Amino acid sequence: MKLVTYRINHTASSLGFIEDNMIIDAEKLGHLKQSPLPNNMLDFIDLGENGIKQAVRLLNTATKEELEECSIPMANATLLAPIPRPRKNIFGIGLNYTEHVAESARSLDTSKELPQQPVIFTKPTTAVTGPETDIIHNQKVTQQLDYEVELAVILGKGGKNIAKENALDCVYGYTIINDISARDCRRAGQWIVSKGQDTFAPMGPVLVTKDEIKDPHNLNLSLKLNGVEKQNSNTKFMLFNINDLIHDLSTVFTLETGDIIATGTPAGVGAGRTPQEFMWPGDVVEATVEGIGTLKNTIVDSESL
Amino acid sequence: MKLVTYRINHTASSLGFIEDNMIIDAEKLGHLKQSPLPNNMLDFIDLGENGIKQAVRLLNTATKEELEECSIPMANATLLAPIPRPRKNIFGIGLNYTEHVAESARSLDTSKELPQQPVIFTKPTTAVTGPETDIIHNQKVTQQLDYEVELAVILGKGGKNIAKENALDCVYGYTIINDISARDCRRAGQWIVSKGQDTFAPMGPVLVTKDEIKDPHNLNLSLKLNGVEKQNSNTKFMLFNINDLIHDLSTVFTLETGDIIATGTPAGVGAGRTPQEFMWPGDVVEATVEGIGTLKNTIVDSESL
Repeated sequence: MKLVTYRINHTASSLGFIEDNMIIDAEKLGHLKQSPLPNNMLDFIDLGENGIKQAVRLLNTATKEELEECSIPMANATLLAPIPRPRKNIFGIGLNYTEHVAESARSLDTSKELPQQPVIFTKPTTAVTGPETDIIHNQKVTQQLDYEVELAVILGKGGKNIAKENALDCVYGYTIINDISARDCRRAGQWIVSKGQDTFAPMGPVLVTKDEIKDPHNLNLSLKLNGVEKQNSNTKFMLFNINDLIHDLSTVFTLETGDIIATGTPAGVGAGRTPQEFMWPGDVVEATVEGIGTLKNTIVDSESL
Repeated sequence: MKLVTYRINHTASSLGFIEDNMIIDAEKLGHLKQSPLPNNMLDFIDLGENGIKQAVRLLNTATKEELEECSIPMANATLLAPIPRPRKNIFGIGLNYTEHVAESARSLDTSKELPQQPVIFTKPTTAVTGPETDIIHNQKVTQQLDYEVELAVILGKGGKNIAKENALDCVYGYTIINDISARDCRRAGQWIVSKGQDTFAPMGPVLVTKDEIKDPHNLNLSLKLNGVEKQNSNTKFMLFNINDLIHDLSTVFTLETGDIIATGTPAGVGAGRTPQEFMWPGDVVEATVEGIGTLKNTIVDSESL
């Protein structure tokens, strides 16, 4: 199913299910059917597959009138990031597509060699923003604001030393992250200022549970800047696949339910183009992953806020 | 005042105040005096100076019998990290003491030049451990486990674009972090696996509120490995002082109440010694900061757990 975190006007955020281009409010549906459901994504993910089964059952047994009572037209709601406040940092994976390793070596002085282990970095929880929001461009801080479309994995189960062959069992679902990167903000080579600034982790528009994604290792992903395609690849070209990444991360970090892994971007980023193309206020960036949707954001000048 | 997070046997953790080598339980004291206090550190920090004033008033007006009723001898309690589960990653600062920049350039191929801006990295919340706990050494992952004594700053107030001259107003208090670093775990230069593994952020033993620290920029800090002094310096030698760090971080990240900044380590780390000296199972490491105390941990082999 497709899960969203949404709000209407300035009310608190709620959990919803997408059905026929309508949002069905989870908490209201549970209340109506006397089978309580949580009002937020992390609590729902904590319920695991049982939560999904319960929600499907309620949706299937609800009358048309009941569904109408807890439906909100998409147009009346604002979608937020599916997980607006993750429990810990987002894990990001650098240099995880061959051609992107090559373009990065040309333009960003990273190594030409393919990495032998996943290249891990993090984004703070405060970097998260939703679909159709502004990405803040502070021109005092960066002149090289760049995009990176990525498949993001949401964990339903955590742990330590997770075996590769069991790793996909830990996945709850998928969403899109645009791994916004200020290329000129690396410090002593560290990427956190480059990748972790406020609004540098747009996420969404929906969280798709894993049962709807036949093969996460065969999804087209692409990105448009101002309507022009800049990235276009497929998750089958990942150097380290999702099993590898979950296994590897779990050898050093305790992974937890709700953790988010952005699995790396293919070639075509602005820094790797000749001439380089960076993003500026007014630019519109759209990141698309097959089976999930399109995550659209606009660049705004921090001075205009 | 000196604040601790503690527990007795395997009960839930609680907030306490240290008085005459006894722990006064905050929640019990509040209950006894009919002036409720929270049972955990983050909720108490959220109360700001009002919380501290309230606690001081209750402690000063409590009778000897009342104090006894909510006292626990230190020996009967286990101290945890003052903030066992931070709200977001810990911010760490690399290369923030001149001599450590020099030793790092010799041994870790970082630049010889002093950084022009703070070198920022993060540790996930899952890296936190307390005083008198084990630091896990996974010999499949690292052969270069190292120590770094650091003054850690706890924020009482967050924000964006905090001016240097107001930055110390945002500080709530101070503790010690031993910035455990597996030198051979950097990946494409990124430090998160090196510095972010489980138990790589021992913290404590107490949180000292800022009113008890006359000048955070003039505190001796030192570290002993198996009783032998390895690091000994003073926070006055920081390249970027606490004002600089809070200002700088807040230009790119939204800082929040309860955020933790580990302010960097002076010279003397194991990687910088000739010959290099790393930590191995059985080693005992003690990190001391003037006015706060000593944070003691033991290295254990992950295979023995």
